[in-house]
Amino acid sequence: MPFPGIEDFRPTPDSIPPPNALYRLKHPEGLPVHIYPLNPLDFVLRAAQIYPDKLAVAHPDVERPAYYSYAVWAQRIQNLAYALIRAGIQPGDRVAVIAPNWFYVHHGVFAARAILTPVNTRLTKPEVDYILDHSGSKLILVDHEYTHLVKGAKVLVIISNDTGRIGDPYEEFLSNGRRFSQEKGWQGLVTEKDEDAGACLCYTSGTTGRPKGVLTTLRINLSVVRAVSSVALNSKVMVVRILPMFHAAGWTYPWAITFAFASQITLRTVSYPHIWNHLLHSNVSHYCGAPTVQIGLVNAPEAKPLERPVSAIIAGSAPTAHLIGELEKRGIQPVHVYGLTYTLGPFTRNYFQPAWQHLSHEERSKMRARQGHSFATAQEARVVYASEEGNVSDGELKDVPKDGKTIGEVVTRGNIGETFYFRDPEATRKAFQGNHFHSGDLAIWHPDGSIGIVDRSKDIIISGGETDNALQNASKLAEHPDVLEVSVVGRPHPKWGERAMAFVVLRGEVIEQWAKKHDKFAEDLKQHARSRLPGFACPEWVEVVPELPKTSTGKILKTQLRKYVAKL
Amino acid sequence: MPFPGIEDFRPTPDSIPPPNALYRLKHPEGLPVHIYPLNPLDFVLRAAQIYPDKLAVAHPDVERPAYYSYAVWAQRIQNLAYALIRAGIQPGDRVAVIAPNWFYVHHGVFAARAILTPVNTRLTKPEVDYILDHSGSKLILVDHEYTHLVKGAKVLVIISNDTGRIGDPYEEFLSNGRRFSQEKGWQGLVTEKDEDAGACLCYTSGTTGRPKGVLTTLRINLSVVRAVSSVALNSKVMVVRILPMFHAAGWTYPWAITFAFASQITLRTVSYPHIWNHLLHSNVSHYCGAPTVQIGLVNAPEAKPLERPVSAIIAGSAPTAHLIGELEKRGIQPVHVYGLTYTLGPFTRNYFQPAWQHLSHEERSKMRARQGHSFATAQEARVVYASEEGNVSDGELKDVPKDGKTIGEVVTRGNIGETFYFRDPEATRKAFQGNHFHSGDLAIWHPDGSIGIVDRSKDIIISGGETDNALQNASKLAEHPDVLEVSVVGRPHPKWGERAMAFVVLRGEVIEQWAKKHDKFAEDLKQHARSRLPGFACPEWVEVVPELPKTSTGKILKTQLRKYVAKL
Repeated sequence: MPFPGIEDFRPTPDSIPPPNALYRLKHPEGLPVHIYPLNPLDFVLRAAQIYPDKLAVAHPDVERPAYYSYAVWAQRIQNLAYALIRAGIQPGDRVAVIAPNWFYVHHGVFAARAILTPVNTRLTKPEVDYILDHSGSKLILVDHEYTHLVKGAKVLVIISNDTGRIGDPYEEFLSNGRRFSQEKGWQGLVTEKDEDAGACLCYTSGTTGRPKGVLTTLRINLSVVRAVSSVALNSKVMVVRILPMFHAAGWTYPWAITFAFASQITLRTVSYPHIWNHLLHSNVSHYCGAPTVQIGLVNAPEAKPLERPVSAIIAGSAPTAHLIGELEKRGIQPVHVYGLTYTLGPFTRNYFQPAWQHLSHEERSKMRARQGHSFATAQEARVVYASEEGNVSDGELKDVPKDGKTIGEVVTRGNIGETFYFRDPEATRKAFQGNHFHSGDLAIWHPDGSIGIVDRSKDIIISGGETDNALQNASKLAEHPDVLEVSVVGRPHPKWGERAMAFVVLRGEVIEQWAKKHDKFAEDLKQHARSRLPGFACPEWVEVVPELPKTSTGKILKTQLRKYVAKL
Repeated sequence: MPFPGIEDFRPTPDSIPPPNALYRLKHPEGLPVHIYPLNPLDFVLRAAQIYPDKLAVAHPDVERPAYYSYAVWAQRIQNLAYALIRAGIQPGDRVAVIAPNWFYVHHGVFAARAILTPVNTRLTKPEVDYILDHSGSKLILVDHEYTHLVKGAKVLVIISNDTGRIGDPYEEFLSNGRRFSQEKGWQGLVTEKDEDAGACLCYTSGTTGRPKGVLTTLRINLSVVRAVSSVALNSKVMVVRILPMFHAAGWTYPWAITFAFASQITLRTVSYPHIWNHLLHSNVSHYCGAPTVQIGLVNAPEAKPLERPVSAIIAGSAPTAHLIGELEKRGIQPVHVYGLTYTLGPFTRNYFQPAWQHLSHEERSKMRARQGHSFATAQEARVVYASEEGNVSDGELKDVPKDGKTIGEVVTRGNIGETFYFRDPEATRKAFQGNHFHSGDLAIWHPDGSIGIVDRSKDIIISGGETDNALQNASKLAEHPDVLEVSVVGRPHPKWGERAMAFVVLRGEVIEQWAKKHDKFAEDLKQHARSRLPGFACPEWVEVVPELPKTSTGKILKTQLRKYVAKL
């Protein structure tokens, strides 16, 4: 087999465009010959031209599995673009997508010159409402499992039952698009002239209590190179997609995979038996996931050593020596990367050094836990003195020494970063001080120029790969009528990596009431949380305390709470 | 060995910058956080940061072989940049380079924000004079073997004896640069703010008898991706550089290799024993060369099957079935690409199709001889009706049908192409009709969208990988006092692929004089040629004819001459 594939894949002749189809959008007028505006959409068209019959997408875990060749997939992308235009979508409009792994929407939205707004399916209804409203989304594409999140929406909602069959509302929407195109083909669509035009609007949990919209441009074409070059994507690659497409637009992998003519398997849910089935039987070579997913994988009963090497791209937090060892025992090679929504995924990577081969497993794992150096297209990643230390006021950031000791904040800038927070100049101003993006993550800078995160932002808990903002989390818990004061920190969790732990000071008038019934209060507070916070952010543990540790100026000493938690 | 290498390579501690050196140029003011101007220089700095001790360059075939680690190489690049600035080079100034394979100059010139002007060492003195004058080069870096080409130059000339030793004028120039920098390091240099600023000015032989200057911009950063992704460059790669650096700036490989953290071996001359020595003993994985070089390689007495796979990137003309078979027998995998100076090297590539595996060797080789599809960063490659057929006048190019039969002209546009012909608006206007670059090459377009060249421009002869312009060639021969009329076509040559053959009509008054002494006249004409044309363009054969075949309107019928030649 020159190409990997789910063995029985054969392209079906239906709806395959004629062999001499032109896979090229109309070029915008008025550009010099040597300027071709960057656009990540181009890659899938090129793949459809060069390898039309190659397996592009397998979606096997549904009633009627779908297998799309590049030619068929490209046709579906075109149909979606025309369907969006027919529905009134104009260049620059936002199109929201709420789906588990429904990534092929990415390309069609770009073909209509609209801005992709993927929404995390794990959010609560009020959070989704806020995002839909704040983004000004003109149309919502929603998977049937998540229709409750769009109840009462005032814009057109297209539901997909994920069946791929006639009668499925999404399939009807595509068909209408195809009919509307009147066979104009790709030349009926115009490439966006400005490569600095908006491409993705991805929401992150904000430190001020509201999600913030990270707006990136079509120059994310360049970030595709990051994925392709750093994990050696090529036409023999088969990716099983565990990372949801709504996490920073799937780290631009939806486009990177097409650049490399690679194939991908999409899943509706992250189920370890399903994943192992594909790892063992579907020629999988790559997957991405947070350490918690990796832990789940190595501990699954189905786990066994793989016959062909698989690369596991790990982000969210650093893999432990134990985890690295367990992965390697199963033939899985970890690639540790670090990033955030701001950069649509990773912007640094741990580059293995030859000298590490001579270290013990423990020592080598420590080196591999470093976040490393920036990607070729990510440009600068620096560690600078935190702003409260006064170095930002004059607009100049000051690097910490590369001594592997001094703690500073990770800042970055480059072509794969956002332009600004959408409709939020204040947050933009704060995050962009000194003309760099401030990650909020604390790190040391090693003499070799690699970065080592020491505290993944003071107020962030990474739980099951999801980012839980501890401040925001605490503010929701503080709405409970009996809570006087509350602070939330992450506590290690065997399954989720971390989970929230809440420390609560009760109001004077209820202290008596809950005395000796702290368990009951904890239950009450957890129930309160469940109606206000996504599941991953609900506190797993609640401890009632007489007071919170504080500085002389009244700031809560989270470091003390974390030290306490670490000893539990 | 995690990395390949000339086995005894050990980085030398001298002149290695301290471990916490900052490998980053000063960022220009006034750019938004998400815009980082593209620049191919960035990659070598990143390589020096991440893999400082890795072998970057081996230059073994000189008296004292040089082996540079990435850190040392980066330091030499910085020294050159400061030396150029100290010598008065301003941003945008042209720096000419005349050297066999002296590619590391590429990066230093960019670091000084100057424009690299590589000059073909095989040209004649008058041609070199023209290029130096037309480009307005402010400084010339010349290898000691080619100083005769710069005699009488009115600008600063720095000679390299290619010794790497103290006392070598080039080494002194670098040392002065280092001293001048006063340890300002990379932060003493500013990155060019405009990614559309000039980068390389490469001269090609022009159809109007004068070399033309192809000016490309720093967006050639994107063409680096072409090389990296299409031939799988990575940190385990060792390239032996056969393609001279003056050919379209070495196809941007000098930068692509650093992007991939790969290593390279440079040679002063293309000698088959040398190349085989490296293929057999230096862990070589890649090289580039025209078919004539490949033929020489497989026929060399040293040739034997290789133990590890090697990729041979073939350009200039299509490899024959015989050549493909001979390469494969020796473990060399051919990768067929097509391009020209306009695109700084390849812009299409033959993409192997799984279905070809079931074809006979002959049939498969035919498929592999097609020029294929454009690279991801090369964007459009089309075959359109030639301009004389009248489709350009209205500014709209008309594609030929994808029927594998209709002949048209290859046109292209995209980010890896030139901005314009330097100081030649007329040539630019002609080449850019219909907002595409016109290659002059005739091709058919296959139903699968791949391109098949049928005639590599009517008036070009590819001889030993060099492009000989037949029209220009003929005009030089016509200067011989006894020549009435002359036409030149390419004739197959066992060593050089093609070589010029001249058909001459003598002046009436000398016909008698040369009767029965045509051999003598041929010798006389060849001698005349040698003083006016580079060696590769001198006619190998001269035939005196009573008249040349012509159309009714008096145009020479080259097709008839070519048919005649094919039967010789």
